[in-house]
Parts: sequence; C-alpha cells; structure tokens
Amino acid sequence: MTEKRYNLVAGQSRARLAALSDGVFAVAMTLLVLDLHTPVATAVHGEHDLLAALGEIAPRLLIYLASFMTLGIFWVGQQTQLNMIERSTRDLTWIHLGFLAGVTLMPFSTALMAEFIHLRIALLIYWANILLLGLILFASWRGAVACDLLGDIEPGLIRAVERRIVVAQSLYAVGAALCVITPLLSLGVIVAIQLVYVIGPKTGPLSRI
Amino acid sequence: MTEKRYNLVAGQSRARLAALSDGVFAVAMTLLVLDLHTPVATAVHGEHDLLAALGEIAPRLLIYLASFMTLGIFWVGQQTQLNMIERSTRDLTWIHLGFLAGVTLMPFSTALMAEFIHLRIALLIYWANILLLGLILFASWRGAVACDLLGDIEPGLIRAVERRIVVAQSLYAVGAALCVITPLLSLGVIVAIQLVYVIGPKTGPLSRI
Amino acid sequence: MTEKRYNLVAGQSRARLAALSDGVFAVAMTLLVLDLHTPVATAVHGEHDLLAALGEIAPRLLIYLASFMTLGIFWVGQQTQLNMIERSTRDLTWIHLGFLAGVTLMPFSTALMAEFIHLRIALLIYWANILLLGLILFASWRGAVACDLLGDIEPGLIRAVERRIVVAQSLYAVGAALCVITPLLSLGVIVAIQLVYVIGPKTGPLSRI
Amino acid sequence: MTEKRYNLVAGQSRARLAALSDGVFAVAMTLLVLDLHTPVATAVHGEHDLLAALGEIAPRLLIYLASFMTLGIFWVGQQTQLNMIERSTRDLTWIHLGFLAGVTLMPFSTALMAEFIHLRIALLIYWANILLLGLILFASWRGAVACDLLGDIEPGLIRAVERRIVVAQSLYAVGAALCVITPLLSLGVIVAIQLVYVIGPKTGPLSRI
Repeated sequence: MTEKRYNLVAGQSRARLAALSDGVFAVAMTLLVLDLHTPVATAVHGEHDLLAALGEIAPRLLIYLASFMTLGIFWVGQQTQLNMIERSTRDLTWIHLGFLAGVTLMPFSTALMAEFIHLRIALLIYWANILLLGLILFASWRGAVACDLLGDIEPGLIRAVERRIVVAQSLYAVGAALCVITPLLSLGVIVAIQLVYVIGPKTGPLSRI
Repeated sequence: MTEKRYNLVAGQSRARLAALSDGVFAVAMTLLVLDLHTPVATAVHGEHDLLAALGEIAPRLLIYLASFMTLGIFWVGQQTQLNMIERSTRDLTWIHLGFLAGVTLMPFSTALMAEFIHLRIALLIYWANILLLGLILFASWRGAVACDLLGDIEPGLIRAVERRIVVAQSLYAVGAALCVITPLLSLGVIVAIQLVYVIGPKTGPLSRI
Repeated sequence: MTEKRYNLVAGQSRARLAALSDGVFAVAMTLLVLDLHTPVATAVHGEHDLLAALGEIAPRLLIYLASFMTLGIFWVGQQTQLNMIERSTRDLTWIHLGFLAGVTLMPFSTALMAEFIHLRIALLIYWANILLLGLILFASWRGAVACDLLGDIEPGLIRAVERRIVVAQSLYAVGAALCVITPLLSLGVIVAIQLVYVIGPKTGPLSRI
Repeated sequence: MTEKRYNLVAGQSRARLAALSDGVFAVAMTLLVLDLHTPVATAVHGEHDLLAALGEIAPRLLIYLASFMTLGIFWVGQQTQLNMIERSTRDLTWIHLGFLAGVTLMPFSTALMAEFIHLRIALLIYWANILLLGLILFASWRGAVACDLLGDIEPGLIRAVERRIVVAQSLYAVGAALCVITPLLSLGVIVAIQLVYVIGPKTGPLSRI
C-alpha cells in the first residue's frame, strides 16, 4: 500500500521530463556530427587534396543533416504532445524515457547508415529507428488520451495528432520498402518526405499529408 | 561569521540543481551509446557480413539498454525526491552533486560490463555503481527529513520512499550475489528486478515490492 | 483540415526552443575542447618535453577560444531575438532548428581549421559556418517581424538588430576575403572583429560598428 | 545610436545564462569520465588481470573525482552569485561566458594531470585553470556590485562572497607552490582544501576559512 502511494507521486513533473528530453535531444543532435572526422592531415598536401578529402566526406554530411532533421521532427512532435498534456504520470514518464532511448540510438543508426550506405540492413535499421520513435509517440498519445491527461482539447485535434503519426510512418515505410531497388533510393524518398513535413506547405497537394 | 553567512545563501536553488541533474543524466544517457561502435567497414563485404557484425554487437546493445533503464529509474527517483523538497540547502546540494558523480560513472561501469561480461569483477563494479546511487538517494532523503526541508508530507509517504530504496537495493544485492554462479545470471536478475520497477504492476504479487 | 490544425499547435513553445538551444550550445561549446588532445605520454620524458608539446598545442587552443567566442556571440544574438519574440510558430521553430544545425557544425569547422590552418579551403569553410549562422538569424528576425511575432517593439530596435547582423557579416566577409593573402591573416582579422563585438566599446570609433 | 540601443537589450536573460551554465557544467562533468578508458580486452585473461588493470586506472579515477569536486565548487559558487543578481547585462553575460570557457577547459587540464601526474607543468596548468575560474568569478562579483545589479543585499554578504574567493584562491596558491617539493603533494593539499569547502564544517578551526 505504501508502495502504491509511492507510484502515485513518482515521475509527475512534466517540466523535468521536458528538460531531460531537451538535454537528450541536444546531446544526440550534437553527437551526430562527431561522425564527421576531419581528413587525416598527413594525407593532405594542399588545397586540392583537402577539397578532394572534403568531397569524400560530403555524403556523410548529408546523412548527418538528414538525421538532424529526423531528430528535429520528433523533437517538435514530442514537444507538441507534452504541451497539450496537463500533467504527467509515472507510466507516461516511462513511455517518454523509452522514446528518449530511441533518440540516443539515432547517432548509432546514422553512423551505420553513413558507413554502409549501399547495404539494405543499414537502411532498414535506420528506418526501424524512425519507426520506433513514431510508435512510442503514438503510444504516448493514446495513453495520454486514455488516462485523461489532456486538458480541454477538441476531439478533432486528438485525431489530427494520431493521423499525423500514422500517415508519416506509412510514408516512411513505403520509402523503406523501396530498398528492394536500392537503399539510396529509400534514403532519398524518406528524406524527401521529411522535407515536406519540415516545410509544411500551406497550399497545393502536399498540404494534405 | 561572514563565512557562515555565505554558506547560508550558497547552493539554495532547487531549480538549478534540477537543471544540472537533467543535464548530467541527459549526457550520461547519450554517452552510453558511444560504446556501440559501428562495425569496421573493411571487414564487411555485404549484407551477410553486416548482419553477422551487428549480431556480435547485440549483447552490448542489451547492456546499454539496461543501463539506460537504470539511469531512468534513478532519474525518476531523484526527481520524485526533489519535487517533494520545498527548498534546498548547501549540504543537500552537495549530497546531490555526489549522486551526479555516481551518474557520470555509469557509462564507464557499463562499458566495463559490456567488455568483460563473463568476469565477476565487472558485474560487481556495475552493481557497486547502482548501490552507490541508492545509498546517496537514501542519505539525501534522510537528510531532507532531518533538516525539515520537506513540505507538508504525510509520514506514510516518507516511509514509503525509504522502504522503496531499501527493498530495491536488497533485491539488487541478492541479484549481485548470484554472480558466484555466473555474472550473466546476476545481470539477468538485476535487469528483471528493474523491469518490474519500470512496469510497476498494479496487481498481482509483484505489485507489493 | 485536421492537418492544418496540427501545424497550428505544433512547435509553439518558446521556452522549450530556448532550452534545446542552450543544450546544443552547451554541448557544442564543450565538444570544441575535445580537439585538444593531451600530448602522447610515451613522447614526454620530463618537464621540458611537456612544455614543448604544449607549445605545439597552443595554436589549437587559440582557435578553440576563437570558436568559443563565435558561439558565444551567436548565443547572445539568438537569445536577444528570442527574448523579443512573444510567441513562436512552427515555421520559426524550424528556422531555429536550422540555426542549431549550423551550431553543431562548428566543432567540425573548428577542428578542420585547427588541422589545416595554412589552407584557404579550411578558412573559407570556417567563415561559411559563421555566414550560415548569420544568415539564419537574419531570416529568423525578418520572419518574426513579417509574421508579427514581436511584442511592442519600437521600429528603431527592429532596424538595429538587422543592421547589427549585416554590418558584422560584412566585416567577417572582408576578413575572409583577406585569405587571398594568407588564411592566418583572415583568421586574425575575424577574431579581432569578434573581440570588438565582445568588448562592445562604449566610446571611440569602434563604438559605431 | 541604434547600435547602443542593441547592446542595451542584448544578453539580459539571467534564466538563459543559468541554463547555458548548467548545460556546460553538465557536459564538462560527464566528459571528465571519458578519460577513464576500460582496460584493453585482449590484455585481460581473467578476474585477476582485470583487477590489476583497474588498479592501474584507480589514480585516474581519484583525479577525476577531484575535478568533479572542483567543478561542483565553482557551480555552487556561480549559482550563488547568479541567485543574488537581480538582472544581467551584456557585459556580465560575457564575463560568465569567459567563466564557462574556463569550465570547458577543465576536462583537458584534468586529462593532462592524470597523464603526467609526476610533472610540475601539469600541476601548474591544473592550478591555473582553478585560478582562472576564481578570478573570473571575482570579476563577475565586483562588476555586479559596481553596476548595481544586486538586489537588496547587506554589505556584509557582499564582503563575505569576496573574502570567500580570496581566501580559497590563496590556499590553492599555497597548495600549488608546494609543487617545488612534489606535484603529488600539491594535488593532495588542493584536494584537501576543497574537501573542507565541500564539507563546510560548522564548528572547529576549519569553520573559519
């Protein structure tokens, strides 16, 4: 009985959950770039060599930027949910800790992708990381709705948040499936989908997704 | 006398203690994953090689997730305490700085465990890290109660927090003792105990611990 | 329609954007110093050797301090803007996420500069990073003004913020152009300009810039 | 004129300065431990080997804990000052950014000390880092007093803060001077002085310092 009492008071601070989340995202976003090693000095004998070496790094830089964008999308997504939640509970806190575990895996998935950009396994793990983040955010939202943790929110908005996650993840899954052709195509499609979400076009056919 | 005056005003910000704690936890949680190195590119010649290489990394991933869970448990525990404390003092601040020092050691203990999973010393150091965190949280709570830093809290809740730490640490100690059989069994039992705390079952025999 | 609704509520927390920014700046500022490797122990046989080895590291230390100063300037700049913005929007949040991506690139640009201090490409990339940060801050300000996100601010102050960025970036561009002579001169001039901004002289000719 | 106006509104957020500081301290505190490498797996063939390898790491662990304590002392010191300051200014913000630059150097000074514990240069650089932090905090306090940034604070407390820094730094300087005998003695004395400040004895002769 005393134990149940403990669980009733544990993990209720939405503010600290947000602070921990911002910290984890900040570290993960900055660690991504650690994968961008400077060219080895002994192999560079002039401007031309350095330019060539940087050209070799360029694909990694693009993958890094794609992952930064992914983390940005999920940071905005989590923030939007937490803003609408009036109070947290122990269970919701643990769902979000699981979400943050997924965030910390992103630098690893990204490095794997950058190293083995031509292999399907690398692409699928990268996509699995994105799927994991989406699934946990979906669970978090469903849990918050079920436990009545939201404030006065119109039902249309509740459905909009759900629909958003489902549509985005379906598109990512289609993108990932394209790796049967080539992993690079998959990555390109996933990045293109993300760009649409980042830009958030207000008119035209893309404003519907 | 001027000095005593200094100590009366030093280290009293509960908000900044929480912010520093969230920062340290965020960095420690994300650094854990730095131990997950991507396979060496030159040793991987195709999908099959990468899958095999990732299979070798898998145990590390599990240990990393276990450590993330450990840090999550102690983050929730510390947060719950700090939420109930009305004001901080210089002494309480230093107890929590000691706690944070224990948190920063976790990536090291985890890496040691991942590298030497078959050795008892590695398991015992991992457990000692968990024990240290529990002991300091216990001292923090006792100190807060003794110095009357809590607000209006019912005595039952005070005892519930203490009991929680004592029971959990006793179970971890039993788990650690099982390393006389094999370190892997110890780790499995400790992780299982933690999972129970994370899930926090509301009914059944496990709801009592 | 539900989707538009989602975008209306997404990314509106100015507080969390500030918290994420502080986190990214904190990590980037501290990662800079990771480039300062301690001398190799086996090559150091006494006080004299260590002093010589540290002498070789000294230029890196200076470049590190210059980059720390750069990040400090942009942190103050972003903070000043966010303080004057009354509310955030999804679009403004994404502009600032782009800004933060530029911040996370700074440790890479700095390491490149430290490694290839005699090469123009390294200097130009370092400068491009500074330019990128300035351009995004300029876009963020223009966007905030256009979307009426500022509170009651006098028009003179709006122009002062714009002018500040344009003047500073023009001076940096002049500094960067000096790399046709030598990259070291460029770096020296850019650092000198930054020092003027940091010191912020209240009288004399430099108080005008 | 517009420029002066800009400087009047720049860098005034005490809350964001505190948040950035907590972030930098959190990262620096956690990076310290990165210097604790796990023993090389190929050199360890059993429990005994691992114990011996950990024994070799032990001195590094102690130096790491000493540096964590140093950072803790300066974190409490800075926090205490910021709590007493009612508002920040551009100039004060830059003094504290200088302070944070000193904080980010701590992992480097610590690694140097751990690697070359028998060399005076390493000890003197370690001490210079501590001195730098103390000098900047002293300048920050003097500046805050001179610019009337403090709230209603009794003059005795203003002097207590100053005296605290001067006494502590004098003791550290004496400790550093002992490196003419041996660097290890210096380190021991400095750590002992810090321990007195951490424990903050309330009675006895040490309660006076």
